[in-house]
Amino acid sequence: MAKITKRSPLAPERFPDLPAVDGVRFATAAAGVRYAGRTDVMLAVLDAGTSIAGVFTRSSTRSAPVLDCQAKLGGASDGPAAILVNSGNSNAFTGHYGQTSVDEIARATAMATGVSANRVFTASTGVIGEPLPHDRIVQKLQDLNDGLDAARIEDAARAIMTTDTFPKGAQAQVEIDGRTVTIAGIAKGSGMIAPDMATMLVYIFTDAMVAQDRLQAVLSNLTDRTFNCITVDSDTSTSDSLMLCATGASGVDATDNPVFTDALHRVMLDLAHQVVRDGEGASKFVEIRVTGAASAADARTHAMSIANSPLVKTAIAGEDPNWGRIVMAIGKSGAAADRDRLSIRFGDVLVAENGWVCPSYREEDGAAHMKGQNLLISVELGLGEGAATVWTCDLTHGYIEINADYRS
Amino acid sequence: MAKITKRSPLAPERFPDLPAVDGVRFATAAAGVRYAGRTDVMLAVLDAGTSIAGVFTRSSTRSAPVLDCQAKLGGASDGPAAILVNSGNSNAFTGHYGQTSVDEIARATAMATGVSANRVFTASTGVIGEPLPHDRIVQKLQDLNDGLDAARIEDAARAIMTTDTFPKGAQAQVEIDGRTVTIAGIAKGSGMIAPDMATMLVYIFTDAMVAQDRLQAVLSNLTDRTFNCITVDSDTSTSDSLMLCATGASGVDATDNPVFTDALHRVMLDLAHQVVRDGEGASKFVEIRVTGAASAADARTHAMSIANSPLVKTAIAGEDPNWGRIVMAIGKSGAAADRDRLSIRFGDVLVAENGWVCPSYREEDGAAHMKGQNLLISVELGLGEGAATVWTCDLTHGYIEINADYRS
Repeated sequence: MAKITKRSPLAPERFPDLPAVDGVRFATAAAGVRYAGRTDVMLAVLDAGTSIAGVFTRSSTRSAPVLDCQAKLGGASDGPAAILVNSGNSNAFTGHYGQTSVDEIARATAMATGVSANRVFTASTGVIGEPLPHDRIVQKLQDLNDGLDAARIEDAARAIMTTDTFPKGAQAQVEIDGRTVTIAGIAKGSGMIAPDMATMLVYIFTDAMVAQDRLQAVLSNLTDRTFNCITVDSDTSTSDSLMLCATGASGVDATDNPVFTDALHRVMLDLAHQVVRDGEGASKFVEIRVTGAASAADARTHAMSIANSPLVKTAIAGEDPNWGRIVMAIGKSGAAADRDRLSIRFGDVLVAENGWVCPSYREEDGAAHMKGQNLLISVELGLGEGAATVWTCDLTHGYIEINADYRS
Repeated sequence: MAKITKRSPLAPERFPDLPAVDGVRFATAAAGVRYAGRTDVMLAVLDAGTSIAGVFTRSSTRSAPVLDCQAKLGGASDGPAAILVNSGNSNAFTGHYGQTSVDEIARATAMATGVSANRVFTASTGVIGEPLPHDRIVQKLQDLNDGLDAARIEDAARAIMTTDTFPKGAQAQVEIDGRTVTIAGIAKGSGMIAPDMATMLVYIFTDAMVAQDRLQAVLSNLTDRTFNCITVDSDTSTSDSLMLCATGASGVDATDNPVFTDALHRVMLDLAHQVVRDGEGASKFVEIRVTGAASAADARTHAMSIANSPLVKTAIAGEDPNWGRIVMAIGKSGAAADRDRLSIRFGDVLVAENGWVCPSYREEDGAAHMKGQNLLISVELGLGEGAATVWTCDLTHGYIEINADYRS
């Protein structure tokens, strides 16, 4: 069983107060898929008329539920819909049995909720390669349906956790055309985090009204600026799933509305940052800003090379302003860089420029910044206009402890 | 100062007996560049007529000595040559001062040895971004020249160490045309190891006679099958340098000779494996064989994705036969894979096939293999003929200990 580790030092003080989103209800259950003494299944039921968009891992070994969701997303969208998630077992690399489990769960969910089986989206997160004991979930479905409640989103956030040390939620409420639009989202994830297109499990709900194709467009665009800009350990899950459900219950058409898009962006970035803050073993939250690159893609390549470097991440863990390792990570990235043009800053402290340490730099200034819990590393390449910002955490003994013995 | 850690549990029993190579002599000194109480400079002088080939890091932030070697390698090769290496300071990202240090050391080496300055190749390894106190090295050059001795190669191997826990040497002697040809090499390196073209510092000497262009060709070819197939932490040094010096003193023309090439391959592979065996914090030596890929490049991509995955490496550290993480690493690599065609073996134990765990697989069999010190992970993709083998080590608390506090 996954270890229950103490709450991340980077965790928010408490779970936020999430407003109910009209048109969606939640329920959770303790099915004993793998964990004992905690909830491990969550059901969300969405009213008829809900638009659903999704982005998923691009892993070539992605799980049966992911493949199933991708197949269903393009389908009919008139009736109600349901999302059924279990933690403890990812139903990934489980052969043809994997699809059987998905089908059984979808069928049982359909029966209990009255939702068509082709509008039941499932997700599983946890250990890879072990058959999912789907009967345990199926047995709970009537109870789950009976317990549906719009106020139970925090319970849902808790039920989908695996090695997470805190549940993750974020919300926004904005005025559009004089009416209130609500967005509330939950996420899980703390290891195997280097999303290549979606990430972990994330479910965001809104009562805004947006057609499915426009909802998908805004979701994909914002994913590239949020969940695709975080990394804990450079490893990519076989189960990453992000779904955005717009019930339309507010009656407000938010299609291409910048106020709605900005609010959604804030919610997604908040959840993405919380995933990094719960990075396995993390003791520092690190923002890496790269500017002046030859292109945006080059900037991202450099930023991710720094964010994923074990030597950079261990230096941060040791509160060591070891900017030489930043230089190393830039050098190895494969993207364009000119040693003599780049400059490096820790927070506001100019560390290096002109291919050398800055004459005014004092080690104690760099060291003082590294002692903080929220760090900023900025690199200006001096080559062009390309820019990227990514977020990561440090690499500590805690990561080794959690991952050297995850299954036992 | 770098911590003096205890000898790697994967180290060979002792340094091998390296035969003298006719035409090359060594000397070492304790110049106090950074370390106290140990040698940190090595000089090798090569007789006139020596062919020298080299491969170097492709880092865009590579060090001044690397840039200098690359510029000099194509030059005249009639006279004698010298190699001067210091440990403790890499003279990387040291601005224009970096080239000044190289020039000063080359000039002093030329004066002391009688070798032309444009045939003096230098290398520096250690901390990045601090000016090299080259005066300390210059002051030792007369003593170094006075101490030159063909038998001092083991001393040379020790003087170039940084975080290495043991000196690395390998040798081969083969008969060609009824005469003996000798190859002897030394290497240093244990962290920041994911060579993208050469690796760490490696110096190999032979008394074979091979023209420079043919020597370069064989070296580049064998590097792709040895040093470019190892990784400790996915990080690439700014100083990686590999030089092969053929003195020709044996009088044996070994140009394109398969016996010579095979012997050289063995020496290079031996040294490459020793670098992995001294991987920072390593407790397991892991061979990863990928076969059946769509192409050789795909096979390498998959193999390196497995070898560099923090989750795979921590599972190995925990002796956990967590083959799900192998599936994850294949899935994220970006190279072609079909979940339902691949099979995975730990040693001789078939673990997974047909997209699922093998019915005959027993967890205790996988666990038994993982308890060994030398592990083999094989993946057959079932797609084509592409194959690659790479070598790596596990990711342990020792890596964090060494790297979270390297500079302090």
